[in-house]
This record gives sequence, structure tokens and C-alpha cells, in this order.
Amino acid sequence: MSFVQDLGSIAIAGLGPGDEALVTPEVTAALAEATDVVGYFPYAARVAPREGLTVHASDNRVELERAMLALGLAAQGRKVVVVSSGDPGVFAMAAAVFEALESGPDHWRTLDIRVLPGITAMLAASARAGAPLGHDFCAINLSDNLKPWPVIEKRVRLAAEADFAIAFYNPRSKARPAGFARILEILQEACGPDRLVLFARAVSCPNEELRIVRLSEARADMADMRTLVIVGSSRTRVIERTGQPILYTPRSALGASS
Amino acid sequence: MSFVQDLGSIAIAGLGPGDEALVTPEVTAALAEATDVVGYFPYAARVAPREGLTVHASDNRVELERAMLALGLAAQGRKVVVVSSGDPGVFAMAAAVFEALESGPDHWRTLDIRVLPGITAMLAASARAGAPLGHDFCAINLSDNLKPWPVIEKRVRLAAEADFAIAFYNPRSKARPAGFARILEILQEACGPDRLVLFARAVSCPNEELRIVRLSEARADMADMRTLVIVGSSRTRVIERTGQPILYTPRSALGASS
Repeated sequence: MSFVQDLGSIAIAGLGPGDEALVTPEVTAALAEATDVVGYFPYAARVAPREGLTVHASDNRVELERAMLALGLAAQGRKVVVVSSGDPGVFAMAAAVFEALESGPDHWRTLDIRVLPGITAMLAASARAGAPLGHDFCAINLSDNLKPWPVIEKRVRLAAEADFAIAFYNPRSKARPAGFARILEILQEACGPDRLVLFARAVSCPNEELRIVRLSEARADMADMRTLVIVGSSRTRVIERTGQPILYTPRSALGASS
Repeated sequence: MSFVQDLGSIAIAGLGPGDEALVTPEVTAALAEATDVVGYFPYAARVAPREGLTVHASDNRVELERAMLALGLAAQGRKVVVVSSGDPGVFAMAAAVFEALESGPDHWRTLDIRVLPGITAMLAASARAGAPLGHDFCAINLSDNLKPWPVIEKRVRLAAEADFAIAFYNPRSKARPAGFARILEILQEACGPDRLVLFARAVSCPNEELRIVRLSEARADMADMRTLVIVGSSRTRVIERTGQPILYTPRSALGASS
């Protein structure tokens, strides 16, 4: 009598910014088939409990342990979904899982691993405000302590010189409370006081707040741990109208000075 | 007898990269309520015909005309959905609609306008390959003729100096057939021959093709109009395994030279 071991799998899934209407059907289907969900508490809490599903919720700042747990469960034949907010490939769990995979036992490399994309915070924030990312842009994570501060400052200066719109993830890091204030100083120096800035908090959630200001008015305490900040390019503009103004970057850079 | 005019609306919606399982429920709901869909032929063709829905499909390179058509229909009280591939805010229709709105009649500014985000090509491509955008990154559009070529070259050089992973949209522009070859030369000069490059074609579609090469092996003809290219940062790595290798950028930049 032959016996084929049921191989486990890992799907590293993006839950989007918060609204269930922004979760892709692909992610919903993976969650419906999962035996185990692994994730940071607030994201794991977004998965509805059901019979046959074990939820492994863990604290922040233990991404590698969480990744190893998920890989170990899959190696036991479980169908694991690792949940991230937004998109798992953008400052989230996918890279952590691959770091753990690379340094882990060889048999992990035979596992069925998929990344299921999601609506990342900058796309959701951009959509709510208009289209500030309508021309070339970049994304910089200010959150972690995995990056020397001089690298961040250099990157921000080069991004300003390239005239990218810049999306800042995790602007108010607990590890670096003064960092974002310094970034705003650098940008005001590089881009001038009139550059437009979007503070988008809890996007797509009931307590969503959007605020559009000039760099000269921007203060670090306008951002918290749930805020995504987009600093426009030199072309980013506002359309005033009844209700919320529209922030957008035109497609054309003809006649650009940079 | 009073009469309240039914105000029209525009939703500028992202259909994702191709697979229906990557279309958000928010977009599906907007399409179900639409009276009119406006879009470039291949995207409009993705919307299922039904009674009460008029589809206005148009050719490429007429984004502004398409945007004005959509705004005009909404001003007549229609429920319009403008469809883009990917995310409408990333090198797609949202900026075009706002350009038309800004230069159009004042009453357009009273319309109900929403942008509905979608899975943009770089997130889908990144997910299929692993997590090449797991650290700071930028997105550069090589397609249109709305940007002077020296601006593009400068931006690519600065992005390489900042050590961003770089996602190139529309690498093979008809207007600039030699442009992408020049970009590959610049990158090889700036980043060296070993830098990893992902060519992701028709991501999430049945004819999807992924190819991971070094910059020294990368050729412009590896990309066509349906290809998204991601050039890794100095940290981007490959995990070899049975089946497709995994391309990813670790979260840490500690000890980075740049």
C-alpha cells in the first residue's frame, strides 16, 4: 500500500488597508481553504474564526519567528496563510518568510509557496486623495531599525532630486521618534515650502482621515503609526471643489526643470 | 411638483493585472451598478456585457478624450466607470481624468468622483517572483512621450544611486524603441553586471512568463508591451529550489555601502 504525504503549503496574503471590499477574491479563497493563519495580532483578528482553522497571532517585531512558525507548519503538511496588511511584498511578511526560508532546512525549499498580492497602503491613500502617484514615484519605509539612518537621509535627498513623488511608510517609528521631523526638514530644504503633502490615516476604515498641507505647514505629529504620508513631486497639484479637494500629479513632465 | 436631478458619478477603477481573482469586490460592485463603462479596448473587453450597460471602448493614446467623454456622461446623470488595467492611479486613467476635470467646465467639479484602487502590475509581478520590492523601491514609466528623455536618464541614475529596486512600466515604448536598451546600459554602468533583473510578462494571465537574469544578460528585446521589468537593489537575491527560483530583497540594509 503506497502512501503519499500530503504536502503543505504557504500563501503569504495581503489583506489590503482595512475595508473588506478591498480584499481580493484570491485571498478570500486562500483563507477559506487554510488550516492555519499566522500573523500579527490586528491582522490575524481580521480573519473570521471557523471550525478547522487555527489562528496563530503574535506580537509585532517578531517577523522572523512568525515566518519560521509558518514554514514549520507547512512542512508538517498544513495549509498555512500568513496574513499581512496591505500587500505582503511591500514592507511586510513576504521578505521575512524568504529570509527564514533561505536560512532554514533544505526541505523547506520543496514547499508550495505563493505570494498573494493586496492593495498596499500607498495605492489606497492615493486613490482616496486623487492620484498623487500618477507620475514616477518611490516608496520609503521609515519604520524599522534594519536600515542605518544615513542611508535613509541619502535616499530621501536623491528621491527629491529625482523629483519623485515619495510615499513614506511607517513615518512615526517608535524606534526613531525624531526621524520623521528630520525628514520633513530635509524635504523642505530640497523641495521648498510649497510642496504638497498628504497625511492619510486609517485609509478605508471608518475613522479614515485625510489632510493635505504644504511642506511649510507639515509637522511630524500629523502622522502616527497608522498614517501613510505622500510628498508630491514638483508637479503635484490640488483641484479645489465643493467637498474634499483632489490631489494629483499630471502625467506630463514636459518642460520639467529637473 | 419638485424635481431633483439624479446626479451622475464617475468611478475610476483598477481591474488588476488580468486574473479575475485579483479584481477587488469594490470594483466588481461598481461595475454591477454602472450605466456606462469607458476604457481602452482590451480593458473594456474585460467587462461582461449586460442589459442597461453601454460600453465605450476607445483606442490607446486618447486618454484625455476618453476622460472628457466620461466626465460628460457623468454630468448627464450617468453612472460611469472608467476602467484601467492594474491600479488607475499608477500610470493610468486617474491622472488623465483629473487633468480633464481641471481644465473642464466648473460644474464638473460637483460630480461624485471616486478612484477604486487595483493590484498594479509591479505588485503582481513581485508576488509571482517572490518579493523583490521588499525594501525601498521606485516606479518609473518609460512609455509615454510626455517626459523629456534626459529627465528619464537622470531619474534612473539617481534611483540607482539611492539603491532602490526599480520597477519599469511600459519598458518597450513604440515611441522610443531604443530607450530601454539605453536604460539597461546606464544601469549596467551604475550597478554592475551582476545586478538581478526580472522580466515579468502577462502576469496572472494564462500566457504568463517570468524570467530572471543578470544585468549583463539582459537585453531590451526580452521585454514587450506586456512586460513589467524590475531591476533589483544591491541586496536583491535569488533562492534556488526545485521549480522556479525565488527573487527577493531582504528587509535589512544594515552594513549597506550606499
